[in-house]
Amino acid sequence: MQTQAYGTEAADRPLEPMTIERREPGPRDVAIDIAFCGVCHSDLHTARNEWGGTVYPCVPGHEIVGRVTAVGGEVDGFKVGDAVGVGCMVDSCRTCPSCQDGEEQYCTGSGFVGTYGGTDPVLGGPTHGGYTRHIVVDQDFVLRIGHDEKDLAAVAPLLCAGITTYSPLAHWKVGPGQKVGVVGLGGLGHMGVKIAAAMGADVTVFSTSPDKRDDALKLGAKDVIVSRDKDQMRAAAGTFDFILNTVAAPHDLDPFVAALKRDGTMVLVGVPAEPHPSPAVFNLVMKRRSIAGSLIGGIRETQEMLDFCHKHGITSDIEMIDMDEINHAYERMLKSDVKYRFVIDMNSLKVA
Amino acid sequence: MQTQAYGTEAADRPLEPMTIERREPGPRDVAIDIAFCGVCHSDLHTARNEWGGTVYPCVPGHEIVGRVTAVGGEVDGFKVGDAVGVGCMVDSCRTCPSCQDGEEQYCTGSGFVGTYGGTDPVLGGPTHGGYTRHIVVDQDFVLRIGHDEKDLAAVAPLLCAGITTYSPLAHWKVGPGQKVGVVGLGGLGHMGVKIAAAMGADVTVFSTSPDKRDDALKLGAKDVIVSRDKDQMRAAAGTFDFILNTVAAPHDLDPFVAALKRDGTMVLVGVPAEPHPSPAVFNLVMKRRSIAGSLIGGIRETQEMLDFCHKHGITSDIEMIDMDEINHAYERMLKSDVKYRFVIDMNSLKVA
Repeated sequence: MQTQAYGTEAADRPLEPMTIERREPGPRDVAIDIAFCGVCHSDLHTARNEWGGTVYPCVPGHEIVGRVTAVGGEVDGFKVGDAVGVGCMVDSCRTCPSCQDGEEQYCTGSGFVGTYGGTDPVLGGPTHGGYTRHIVVDQDFVLRIGHDEKDLAAVAPLLCAGITTYSPLAHWKVGPGQKVGVVGLGGLGHMGVKIAAAMGADVTVFSTSPDKRDDALKLGAKDVIVSRDKDQMRAAAGTFDFILNTVAAPHDLDPFVAALKRDGTMVLVGVPAEPHPSPAVFNLVMKRRSIAGSLIGGIRETQEMLDFCHKHGITSDIEMIDMDEINHAYERMLKSDVKYRFVIDMNSLKVA
Repeated sequence: MQTQAYGTEAADRPLEPMTIERREPGPRDVAIDIAFCGVCHSDLHTARNEWGGTVYPCVPGHEIVGRVTAVGGEVDGFKVGDAVGVGCMVDSCRTCPSCQDGEEQYCTGSGFVGTYGGTDPVLGGPTHGGYTRHIVVDQDFVLRIGHDEKDLAAVAPLLCAGITTYSPLAHWKVGPGQKVGVVGLGGLGHMGVKIAAAMGADVTVFSTSPDKRDDALKLGAKDVIVSRDKDQMRAAAGTFDFILNTVAAPHDLDPFVAALKRDGTMVLVGVPAEPHPSPAVFNLVMKRRSIAGSLIGGIRETQEMLDFCHKHGITSDIEMIDMDEINHAYERMLKSDVKYRFVIDMNSLKVA
């Protein structure tokens, strides 16, 4: 089955229309008509091969929302017309301890199959993501969406930005009575603020820019600390139970570690291209603090996150674009010029 | 009350005999005749002002074992003749959240009062440690020792090396069915191996030297990995639940982090004078691993550790020295030429 998509043939080429192949739905597959696809920084990094290893042609997109158009004979959780989502994974080994625990993102068997840039288990070659109208996905990697029709576009970024922040907040048991910091107020950070606040935590945003104060408070933060202000950072020392650090650019982790209470943890969800300055061991030892990392979330947890967000009325703050605006959107993303996530309206993709 | 001790008046001077003052025991105090005092790397670093801030005269020693010679009128837990220990702390604020939780080592009030080099709450000036025959300590910071008389010298290092390794092993719930790594086989590391093995864990020693294999196995390890052997380290990737890293010298943390399973933690108990190379965030993110720090342990936990070691027949492997051999012992410690802890026989201290 051939379908129209937007992708690139090389690291130095813009994204442009291309034709890709999708498999015919098998007995366990769900075929989806994609309505919206969020635009993640990973899309850009992969398209431009900035992490290395990109296999071309590359069709990015792993914040996918749409409607079921067909289901295989063994599919029991979905029917035609259902609103569904697909995130960063479309398969995994299913048998390793991580998969057995529902933590497919840490699959130690074959590794999970990325929604794009993975190795397609049926067709071979690279998997192709959501910058297209059609995708066929094993039912175990399809998510149910309970939000209203009008919110579907703003749900799309939950599939990556939402789960990437929800998973560590849930894993480290963030909740009422806790003071939680969110470092950075971009696509990930703004979701982290909304979700941590809905979990009942007292949320503070750490931002390099004092201009983000009003926005942060509107998103649910109680306070904003300007992280470049040494006096403000010193005053914050020893006051946070948990810090979610969404900044991938290399930066000094020490003032944030120092802001943790005894037994506090800072979780990094961004991987910098160059290392952060080495964090001071003294800050860890003196209050038994931890620095940890976290990668998206498992399928069960992604469903839990979607249900949580539906219950609490949480979506992403988005700016809708047409498919042919994607290259311009990438340039704006590089300047952090988006509040807070671009979402592609897939109706704008002209089908040849 | 004047008493004979060994200490130094300046960073560049050897330790030599001196006279120090001890307070008369107050109503809550326990007076102790020191039988043995372990020699910790901190003693050397402080005597030589290598961490800065040393107040002279400096009398080191915080691995103290002895007998009670007098108790104040309000002391209820100790009587004359009891075998007791004193570790790294002799007081704390008692009221901050950490003290209330029995984690006096993380006291956020005044900070804990170090056994040496703290500010003496009664006499003023620096507190003086265990390189002497007499010490007077508030009963809340005195530990009960259940070991036999013949083992008392080898119990002394438990008061710092023992609790520094026991505390993180207990806090992170090391036990049967877990694979635990101990990095470095010195004073701390050899205690970590014994304690983790007694907790039921399957212990592997990471050592730069293949020569330590037999010793490690004798101490209770099941295996030894030569950490300079890249093939051995690669083969260990993803197999450890917990790693206790006792090495204070700057070193590449990445191969040890990579040796952790999903959700594994590496705890650092040594603070390097120069930073470690910055650990790769990728290794943390890809398996939700943590790097943490830990500082000695609280008084309640130190008692728990002593009772645990008594029950399991655990002491330190020691080399006994006379007090006037201390400067030579420091030189040997700098070359790691000791298995595994020097302990001073305080009977060797000539009282003027």
